[in-house]
Amino acid sequence: MTKVVNIGIAGAGRIGQRHAKNLLTQIPNAHLVAVADVEKKRAQELAERCGKIRWYEDYEKMLEQKDIEAVLISASTNVHREIIIGAAKKGKHIFCEKPITLTLEETNEALAVVEKARVLMQVGFMRRFDPALASAKKEIDKGSIGKPLVFKAVSRDPEGPPFEYARASGGLFVDSSIHDIDLARWFMGSEVEKVYAEGRVLIYPEYKEFGDVDVALITFTFKNGSLGNIENSRRSGYGYDTRVEIVGSEGTLQVGYLRNRRFLLVNKSGVSHDVVPSWVERFAGAFVHELQHFVDCVMDNKTPLVTGIDGKKALEIALAATTSCQKGISITL
Amino acid sequence: MTKVVNIGIAGAGRIGQRHAKNLLTQIPNAHLVAVADVEKKRAQELAERCGKIRWYEDYEKMLEQKDIEAVLISASTNVHREIIIGAAKKGKHIFCEKPITLTLEETNEALAVVEKARVLMQVGFMRRFDPALASAKKEIDKGSIGKPLVFKAVSRDPEGPPFEYARASGGLFVDSSIHDIDLARWFMGSEVEKVYAEGRVLIYPEYKEFGDVDVALITFTFKNGSLGNIENSRRSGYGYDTRVEIVGSEGTLQVGYLRNRRFLLVNKSGVSHDVVPSWVERFAGAFVHELQHFVDCVMDNKTPLVTGIDGKKALEIALAATTSCQKGISITL
Amino acid sequence: MTKVVNIGIAGAGRIGQRHAKNLLTQIPNAHLVAVADVEKKRAQELAERCGKIRWYEDYEKMLEQKDIEAVLISASTNVHREIIIGAAKKGKHIFCEKPITLTLEETNEALAVVEKARVLMQVGFMRRFDPALASAKKEIDKGSIGKPLVFKAVSRDPEGPPFEYARASGGLFVDSSIHDIDLARWFMGSEVEKVYAEGRVLIYPEYKEFGDVDVALITFTFKNGSLGNIENSRRSGYGYDTRVEIVGSEGTLQVGYLRNRRFLLVNKSGVSHDVVPSWVERFAGAFVHELQHFVDCVMDNKTPLVTGIDGKKALEIALAATTSCQKGISITL
Amino acid sequence: MTKVVNIGIAGAGRIGQRHAKNLLTQIPNAHLVAVADVEKKRAQELAERCGKIRWYEDYEKMLEQKDIEAVLISASTNVHREIIIGAAKKGKHIFCEKPITLTLEETNEALAVVEKARVLMQVGFMRRFDPALASAKKEIDKGSIGKPLVFKAVSRDPEGPPFEYARASGGLFVDSSIHDIDLARWFMGSEVEKVYAEGRVLIYPEYKEFGDVDVALITFTFKNGSLGNIENSRRSGYGYDTRVEIVGSEGTLQVGYLRNRRFLLVNKSGVSHDVVPSWVERFAGAFVHELQHFVDCVMDNKTPLVTGIDGKKALEIALAATTSCQKGISITL
Repeated sequence: MTKVVNIGIAGAGRIGQRHAKNLLTQIPNAHLVAVADVEKKRAQELAERCGKIRWYEDYEKMLEQKDIEAVLISASTNVHREIIIGAAKKGKHIFCEKPITLTLEETNEALAVVEKARVLMQVGFMRRFDPALASAKKEIDKGSIGKPLVFKAVSRDPEGPPFEYARASGGLFVDSSIHDIDLARWFMGSEVEKVYAEGRVLIYPEYKEFGDVDVALITFTFKNGSLGNIENSRRSGYGYDTRVEIVGSEGTLQVGYLRNRRFLLVNKSGVSHDVVPSWVERFAGAFVHELQHFVDCVMDNKTPLVTGIDGKKALEIALAATTSCQKGISITL
Repeated sequence: MTKVVNIGIAGAGRIGQRHAKNLLTQIPNAHLVAVADVEKKRAQELAERCGKIRWYEDYEKMLEQKDIEAVLISASTNVHREIIIGAAKKGKHIFCEKPITLTLEETNEALAVVEKARVLMQVGFMRRFDPALASAKKEIDKGSIGKPLVFKAVSRDPEGPPFEYARASGGLFVDSSIHDIDLARWFMGSEVEKVYAEGRVLIYPEYKEFGDVDVALITFTFKNGSLGNIENSRRSGYGYDTRVEIVGSEGTLQVGYLRNRRFLLVNKSGVSHDVVPSWVERFAGAFVHELQHFVDCVMDNKTPLVTGIDGKKALEIALAATTSCQKGISITL
Repeated sequence: MTKVVNIGIAGAGRIGQRHAKNLLTQIPNAHLVAVADVEKKRAQELAERCGKIRWYEDYEKMLEQKDIEAVLISASTNVHREIIIGAAKKGKHIFCEKPITLTLEETNEALAVVEKARVLMQVGFMRRFDPALASAKKEIDKGSIGKPLVFKAVSRDPEGPPFEYARASGGLFVDSSIHDIDLARWFMGSEVEKVYAEGRVLIYPEYKEFGDVDVALITFTFKNGSLGNIENSRRSGYGYDTRVEIVGSEGTLQVGYLRNRRFLLVNKSGVSHDVVPSWVERFAGAFVHELQHFVDCVMDNKTPLVTGIDGKKALEIALAATTSCQKGISITL
Repeated sequence: MTKVVNIGIAGAGRIGQRHAKNLLTQIPNAHLVAVADVEKKRAQELAERCGKIRWYEDYEKMLEQKDIEAVLISASTNVHREIIIGAAKKGKHIFCEKPITLTLEETNEALAVVEKARVLMQVGFMRRFDPALASAKKEIDKGSIGKPLVFKAVSRDPEGPPFEYARASGGLFVDSSIHDIDLARWFMGSEVEKVYAEGRVLIYPEYKEFGDVDVALITFTFKNGSLGNIENSRRSGYGYDTRVEIVGSEGTLQVGYLRNRRFLLVNKSGVSHDVVPSWVERFAGAFVHELQHFVDCVMDNKTPLVTGIDGKKALEIALAATTSCQKGISITL
């Protein structure tokens, strides 16, 4: 065990760049030592900006580096399976962006290798590390709202992703609802039993080409008898809006508000303030805290708060929601 | 047509007393002239308090009074049908509390007589007359949030009603959700196409005796392609909490907040304020405005904003939700 | 002592009409029996609207009526003194609008007669009866914020009054700040020791003609060592804005928020809501509660919460603020 | 001009450590190369933590370093004068914490040397760089509230500083109010003409030993005719509370709210949320942005937004407030 964890990043796109910056400047006991990306230029540029660290076009070369203890996988979802397996076989601990893969088969395959290799694996459900959501969880665990009865979440993106991203994303449920689904399991402390989803193409007609929806409502029942629902939208028209409410037998707890800056304008048009522009502002802290947690788990050899199993369970529910939405029936897991 | 509308109240219970007080003190062009209740003492007492007006044990006697132009029906739901029919046959205009009846058959029967008699009928969905909800509707009609895509509502009572009331109420969906259902139709300007509901007994185990639930989630699709959901609870544990959100293509509009008094306490326990204790405080104005609207409609011979048809449509959806919840399938109307 | 208090109103202008309506519809144990106003037509019209009650051009005639137990004085401030004296001499209990008079001499003269006549007198500082301010006072008395250290108030009218009203009003401090001054004494439970005021004509240049200001800041020290300040404006440009904050040794308590309707619009312009349009909406309840209190005090022969002495003390401070503002020095009371 | 600005820090106490961390991790075009502190151990430790950079007991040795272009002065206020003069004479650009010095004489002496040396100087009024306050200023400059008429600020610390710090701080007005005073000048775009202050020892009796107060109210008039007031407290009893309101002829603008985390608990105790615990959380961003601004100004040879003159003007007003409070009279500048 060294006093710093050496990390390599596989995937130098937008989210990889964000993780790189956080590793460099915010996580004292992490050392970003290499970057890999199939786009040579992207790998090279990120490596340059990170203090001229090593870079690779081929992630496998990076995995061969003995000094790298952990790999952060922020490549396209379609290569997650192979990178996870490659990393696990080399004994590297793994931080993998969500969703793990787009199918349960691939996820099962990957997780089997991870388990066998006895490496740590954390999935990028950063919301659990948001200070507000994390303290909400603690508050509930203290009993402040009695027994949790209903989980509710809203997540609306300001704008839909690029067409090609959306097409390859696995769909709204797998790409976006999956964050809310993970929170549902976490907050309710129970597994989902049954899923019913309604979705529509109400904003981006082009989503019909690949059978996706852009607005959706998901209803759950949990094994412990409680209920849940989630609303998702690819485009709010005003900003990033993500809220969670847990309704308990003795109260309710709400996380999320719309104001970004502490600034209120009052004139003859009324009272107004801004909204949170995007997940970048909303979850800036959460992205740092999830990495810190991962690095600390690697250093202390502890199981992360969000494991591969959590990633798999959320995927299973997201896929059930997709099926429910397509077939118009509820799906029992 | 006189300059004041003479009104008789059939049903001198809690809600009847409230309407009586509002008619007396808040509606200048209404004149409360009589009260009927099967409980003689209740009729007598209310009549006394209203300035010694006429009172009847038998509502039919009241309906025979020539000077009465309109009847306000706040008796038990199980006698709504017969009072509506009796009043319509005597040519009295009708204000009827919700739900009109507990079955579609009875409602159809009553509405047929009303239509034939060409009397006005308004149903007591007072929320449409709440200043906040009414201005929200105007704002949406102005296009401030683009095209409405998703309707969302929460209604949580502070405490469940007495056991006997709950047993006879028609169930959570017909008794309580029906208010949110009416708002859904009104705000979305479209009829509901399909309903899916999940409900559970999570608070009052005794509700199982009569097959009701105390917490429920309803999901809708509307004929115009939009979506909706409603959450209801018989007991919040903290107060009365009713909120509506209409999500549009260009924004969202939220009605409802929890603070009752304009008063904020900040000390080492944090920042705190009160909640709205009950529907009495929340909808005090709405109850006045709906009566004023009814009286004005009678005076001007205009169709009320909420008609018997609205009452019937909401009942139909509430019954579909009840069935969906019991059978675990979605119901297409 | 009858079970209902018969009341006559002296002054049928805007505020008198409001009190008349509240007496008629909201105060069960009050009976409005007569109205007096020097403008015959105004007296006649209000009497007509109040159910054809008696009316007088000459308030003295009204005071001669044996059945009248109490007089509500809402005439112009310049005749307050003589009506108070007249009413007291006839043994009528008195509810008088603020300010009692425009000078301490006149107030002293009137209060001496009231005292000698042993009639009850309440002054129209209705804010003490606002549910939010009243519960704030209770909260403070319970010790929720420790010992009160600083009193802060803001009152901004939406628009300045008519020029002629402003000219005869006694000035911003006596006409408007006096409400905040009364709250200061009440909340801090201590008399003001020293006053310093700054005021400017920043909005209505015509106020310079009669030596008044339209924006002002007042600073107090209280005899118990605590501090206070008040900000007043004749025109906010957006609505009616009145807030109070009491800063204590262990916390702070804020009364007042800007939203009038429970309705929030979110679109690409941000989040917005309305403001409180005027004191009519803000203090609608307070106007009812102060009358109910007065009538109850008359019935039970109890001293009102706000007496003539309170009216005099507030006037004394308002006059000191006026002097301080004119001379640029602090005034010790 | 290099592409990175080499900076040395004089003063490795709490605020110096914060600046060091921000320079290291948040300001890409700054390079922290040295640290000086009279306490050898403190200098050594900070240098160690900053990547084993150079450290000095004697700030003068650090100023002799040719590679250092700029000095950040976070030493005790009583040595500011000599460090500023030393740095200026060596041609180093200067970032100096507030207050520049405790007397106008010393400030004038220091600023004269700075001016002669033609080095840049920025004073640590970080609030101007807070995203909320900065956008408020822009909004006002756009005319959203018309002409600014009244400036209002509140700043309450959660707890008073250590006794020895308070004793040497120059007093509440010079140590704490000075931040609000700087905002007043900035927002109103006008110089203060007259100051009146009231202050009391209401919390920490021991402050009487050195003639300071712990609660204060300051009233200003500005040369352009507008008004202002500030409330300060050394101890709120609940958290850090800083708010600014600018009242304009056509509206008002408020900056500041109390909630720290996006999390609301509702149960039978009511609705509650947390408060901002300290200036560390509230102004975390502002501390970064002020340094970035300074470094950018050095690179582009531009005058900073907050200059030595601003530091001096604020000090002058703070000293006038101190005198006013002691003598009980208003002070014209």
